[in-house]
Amino acid sequence: MYRDGMPRSKGDHEARRRDVSEAVWQVLAARGFTSLTLRAVAAELGATTGLLTHYFPTKRALIEYALDLLEQRTVSRPRRHSGEGLAAFRDALLDILPLTPVAADSNRIWVSSWDAALSDADLSTDYARKYAAGRDRLTERVAAAQELGELPSGNPAHVAAGAQAFVLGLVVQALFDPAAFPPQRQVELLDDYLARLTAPH
Amino acid sequence: MYRDGMPRSKGDHEARRRDVSEAVWQVLAARGFTSLTLRAVAAELGATTGLLTHYFPTKRALIEYALDLLEQRTVSRPRRHSGEGLAAFRDALLDILPLTPVAADSNRIWVSSWDAALSDADLSTDYARKYAAGRDRLTERVAAAQELGELPSGNPAHVAAGAQAFVLGLVVQALFDPAAFPPQRQVELLDDYLARLTAPH
Repeated sequence: MYRDGMPRSKGDHEARRRDVSEAVWQVLAARGFTSLTLRAVAAELGATTGLLTHYFPTKRALIEYALDLLEQRTVSRPRRHSGEGLAAFRDALLDILPLTPVAADSNRIWVSSWDAALSDADLSTDYARKYAAGRDRLTERVAAAQELGELPSGNPAHVAAGAQAFVLGLVVQALFDPAAFPPQRQVELLDDYLARLTAPH
Repeated sequence: MYRDGMPRSKGDHEARRRDVSEAVWQVLAARGFTSLTLRAVAAELGATTGLLTHYFPTKRALIEYALDLLEQRTVSRPRRHSGEGLAAFRDALLDILPLTPVAADSNRIWVSSWDAALSDADLSTDYARKYAAGRDRLTERVAAAQELGELPSGNPAHVAAGAQAFVLGLVVQALFDPAAFPPQRQVELLDDYLARLTAPH
């Protein structure tokens, strides 16, 4: 579909960029960062690898683009808003789990990115910062639930770190074994976890 | 050190195999599966890539060897045995966490292997089976702790799945942010998790 070189107008350019993003996403969702090559993206797009080198002069540029795409799609995904306090804390945790095919793709790509991220000092620092920011947002919700009397008092950062660990590990289990961890079971496990948090401790 | 071709005796062969294993392990611990190449292993070993092709005729053979090595070292690692029932359940969970540099290397390699495993249907099935077997072993310990009255009654498989999720997620957090999750904090978070399990539910 894109065998005739570079786009000619700004509209063409934007449309192509969207198509390229979608092709990168599809390769990642199906085969992970291990298999992310110009050749694989070109095949997905029905384009030549030559065309793609206009977008990604190096393998590293492709990887960085993919990581940015993952970040953007994660930031802009729809979020649950079912209430305040404990309900908002639960919403934030449900938003992380692979409860839909779209969320499963996104999680599969996140897990796949961990190898690359752990292998690169800058990226590893960046990921540590992202997860710390995630814990900070959870901590605010825990503190709000404590103020409402829905969670017992105690260090909210500690509760947030535990909950983040729980959902990250549940993501990994559900990705490897979707038959054993269908959405309903993930939600049950999370609700059981939350029920234990609400008991005085 | 290994520039002169194939080993000449069985003893030489065994010694070399150990050295090759160690070189593969070091590459994985430092840079993950993404960076596992014959060239990287050869550099670590101080050998030629030519020598290594005797061991690993293809990239896939190298990856499979690395995955076997990870499995073997995990199976044969020392385990805690501090008691029965709840203590044995806690031991099994502590055995998973990156509480020592050796355990951190091993976990870093496990996390790194997830991308490759999720990208390959056979490997993915194999991993799902491994994690299910891990949950079964945890389930036995939960059931034993329930029989001793140390954990409240309830579906032990459900408790085991939650605990496995919790420690897997804690592994990921600790690998990305060892400063925020030193061994002592990991143990505190786990003990807090276990304390909530022991309360009637």
